[in-house]
Amino acid sequence: MSKSFGDMPKEEFKKYGHALIDWIADYLDNIETYPVLPDTKPGDIKSTLPQTAPQLSEDLKNIFSDVDKIILPGVTHWQHPNFMAYFNSSASGPGIFGEILSAAFNTNGMVWKSNPASAELEETVLNWFKKMIGLPEEFFGVVYDTASVSTLHGIAAAREYSGLNIRAKGMNGIPKLILYCTEHAHSSIEKAVITLGIGMENIHRIPVDENFSMIPAKLEKAISEDRAKGYVPFCVVATIGTTSSTAIDPVDEIADICEREKIWFHLDAAYAGVTAILPEMKKYFKGFERADSFVVNPHKWLFVPIDFSILYTRKPDVLKKAFSLVPEYLKTAEDNTAINYMDYGIQLGRRFRALKFWFVLRYFGVEGLQERLRGHLQLAQQFSEWIDKHEMFERLAPVYFGTICFRAKPNGITDENKLNELNEKLLNTVNSTGKVFLVHTKLNGKFTIRLVVSGLRTEEKHVMLAWEIIRGELAKLCK
Amino acid sequence: MSKSFGDMPKEEFKKYGHALIDWIADYLDNIETYPVLPDTKPGDIKSTLPQTAPQLSEDLKNIFSDVDKIILPGVTHWQHPNFMAYFNSSASGPGIFGEILSAAFNTNGMVWKSNPASAELEETVLNWFKKMIGLPEEFFGVVYDTASVSTLHGIAAAREYSGLNIRAKGMNGIPKLILYCTEHAHSSIEKAVITLGIGMENIHRIPVDENFSMIPAKLEKAISEDRAKGYVPFCVVATIGTTSSTAIDPVDEIADICEREKIWFHLDAAYAGVTAILPEMKKYFKGFERADSFVVNPHKWLFVPIDFSILYTRKPDVLKKAFSLVPEYLKTAEDNTAINYMDYGIQLGRRFRALKFWFVLRYFGVEGLQERLRGHLQLAQQFSEWIDKHEMFERLAPVYFGTICFRAKPNGITDENKLNELNEKLLNTVNSTGKVFLVHTKLNGKFTIRLVVSGLRTEEKHVMLAWEIIRGELAKLCK
Repeated sequence: MSKSFGDMPKEEFKKYGHALIDWIADYLDNIETYPVLPDTKPGDIKSTLPQTAPQLSEDLKNIFSDVDKIILPGVTHWQHPNFMAYFNSSASGPGIFGEILSAAFNTNGMVWKSNPASAELEETVLNWFKKMIGLPEEFFGVVYDTASVSTLHGIAAAREYSGLNIRAKGMNGIPKLILYCTEHAHSSIEKAVITLGIGMENIHRIPVDENFSMIPAKLEKAISEDRAKGYVPFCVVATIGTTSSTAIDPVDEIADICEREKIWFHLDAAYAGVTAILPEMKKYFKGFERADSFVVNPHKWLFVPIDFSILYTRKPDVLKKAFSLVPEYLKTAEDNTAINYMDYGIQLGRRFRALKFWFVLRYFGVEGLQERLRGHLQLAQQFSEWIDKHEMFERLAPVYFGTICFRAKPNGITDENKLNELNEKLLNTVNSTGKVFLVHTKLNGKFTIRLVVSGLRTEEKHVMLAWEIIRGELAKLCK
Repeated sequence: MSKSFGDMPKEEFKKYGHALIDWIADYLDNIETYPVLPDTKPGDIKSTLPQTAPQLSEDLKNIFSDVDKIILPGVTHWQHPNFMAYFNSSASGPGIFGEILSAAFNTNGMVWKSNPASAELEETVLNWFKKMIGLPEEFFGVVYDTASVSTLHGIAAAREYSGLNIRAKGMNGIPKLILYCTEHAHSSIEKAVITLGIGMENIHRIPVDENFSMIPAKLEKAISEDRAKGYVPFCVVATIGTTSSTAIDPVDEIADICEREKIWFHLDAAYAGVTAILPEMKKYFKGFERADSFVVNPHKWLFVPIDFSILYTRKPDVLKKAFSLVPEYLKTAEDNTAINYMDYGIQLGRRFRALKFWFVLRYFGVEGLQERLRGHLQLAQQFSEWIDKHEMFERLAPVYFGTICFRAKPNGITDENKLNELNEKLLNTVNSTGKVFLVHTKLNGKFTIRLVVSGLRTEEKHVMLAWEIIRGELAKLCK
């Protein structure tokens, strides 16, 4: 292979490949020396990059040097142990290895034949994980890129399940379809509802209790009122671990209602679902096996590099009926004897994603993963206790998983606007230290700081450091 | 970092990382020693894998050994130079490096702040590529995973452009929306139409000429008839390089109609779009800058590992209006001064994909990429000439790009059913040699063999080998 035609020469690949591996090993080893959030303003990075692609081939040496000079200073370090924002996702070594292998094979597993190993490994690891979290045998899993896309497919299956022949006829001649969830459901539900042509107005928000959990009686009432109006209730979305506060909807009671009303029950556990591998956490998943579709993201809190989201469904035939389409050029002799994953979704192209999950499950083992999740849950409880015991802070939601919602509430300040201003300032000053990264939400109108413990490299000292910085910055603000 | 808590130790990462790089270098170097298609039956691979995940941590040595023993024999080798099926995609060394780096950073670029480098590099490389293919400045690009998803977003923008407030109200009270394309448009158009709630029946298929290109007068007629019925024509989808035969719709004339009729014009060039970097190919892209949205996949034929599909649009505001939703926990101080790519689509999660494209563009340079595409186009022309000159074969479509549609037509056989049977047999025997992988399509009812030249490692000798095998197998069948 010469550089003038074909791929990179083998020796160059090895030389720079080794250098890249060493670079990554050092990067991860020194990750704490970087500011979590980069000190960069919009436009800074692009202004240092050329306006056009290079006409001639450049040396890898220059490209890697620009990674150090231009890219690295502009990266938000998700792998940093004090990245405690959003739902932190961290990629483990074995997960990175799986991803590397997948890039090297570069297969597109749209049908079984286009990569049998991809189809069968996907089926296998999804069955493994199903057993780990305790979903019954009947559930069928599909890997998608993101929870947004898994959710879209779950709700699309719900729409298909309504039996209105929307696939062929479209939505324009049918009654209003109504979807139910709380105001705490993830924004991807709204995006799915927009995409599927259901319309944002046809999301009916069910009130929540003081823990931000759906009130089942209110759901029942809403369904009955909508039926009376001639609308078609077609989907209830509940969440185990909402994004704002990690609230848990009463899944078992909602399942009763959905069964009785014959409505598709979609359950979003994109973040918290992985904790079902712990026996002591099963209490939060009561009834989850009654969902028609269930989303869980190993890329969020199980050390698999993004992207890797799973949709499990008890009714794969409905999903297939919604999406299966086989053009002539994709027909194969194995269409009736093998799984062609393209039948279960919008995306025809499918990377060999199962590899990275397989690597992670085997490298850590079930117990290794349980141990790590338990560590995070304990750290979160510890932080939560610190908040509860401190007179200048208050906790704003129960801590079920690894996320703590809190705010500063120094003595003497009772005005809610002032508290909101103070906490927004506090968050900004904490983040501008570069030592920790947190984000906020609003709960009952209160500006709420969220701290998430789910990084693979996050240890007690990192949570202590965060706490120290938060208290220190508050002290400065209150001076 | 200990194995009992946290990630893989640094030294282990380096040791096995180097081994993995060497493994990949050898794999790619020896790729021709593997059968293109694996000799495996449905169930073979999964039956050799355990039924449950390991309870305890396993050695990387064992995992890598299973890659050799279990995975490798079941992989369809997309990187093989005689993989000439579908639209072959091959990953280059620099592309793989970019992917590796992206897995190591493991960032989620949903908003600018969550990784400024990702947002700004994406904007930069998409601007570079826009100039390379000759799209005007006004086009705005977004990277999605697959062409199916890019197309879905293009058609969703078209739906939004109809001004019927579908985002809020849904589709149930509005007139029928009609989409126009030929029967040769990709299946992802149908999947988008299903997903968006438009309905398969509301795809109106416009007849094609003898080259499988849309006939503009028929489009005009269909639009006017549909308007007369009270329907709303909302989107025309044309293709440069259809999947079956790589036909080219008359883009400029279609653009005239869409402009006059104020209908969104979506242009699918997922496969062939990259050839617009060649001045001599510009003739096939006349008027493409008049499309409202345009799909092109660097992961198909520009040596970027899958997944990497670009949607360019002249009307980014429409796309944003369709999808933008900002929950409290995703609000940032830079919302008005930076691009938050989550605003332009369904997916919230976004890998740092720009890196791999940046690596490929710089490593090869524009001229290096042009040279490789020219090489493929020449090889395709060469194969096409062999077909044309051989009395026992016939070409079934023009060869504009790297794809040749042909069939065997030995003297004496005129019955179409017999020809179909013969060619199906021929394809199967050719593929079962393991030396080359081709797929078929149907054109005017004729079983058509497709041979695609777009692999980075594909040289003249590989096309000659394919030709030799095809003729050899035909000779055996005709004995």
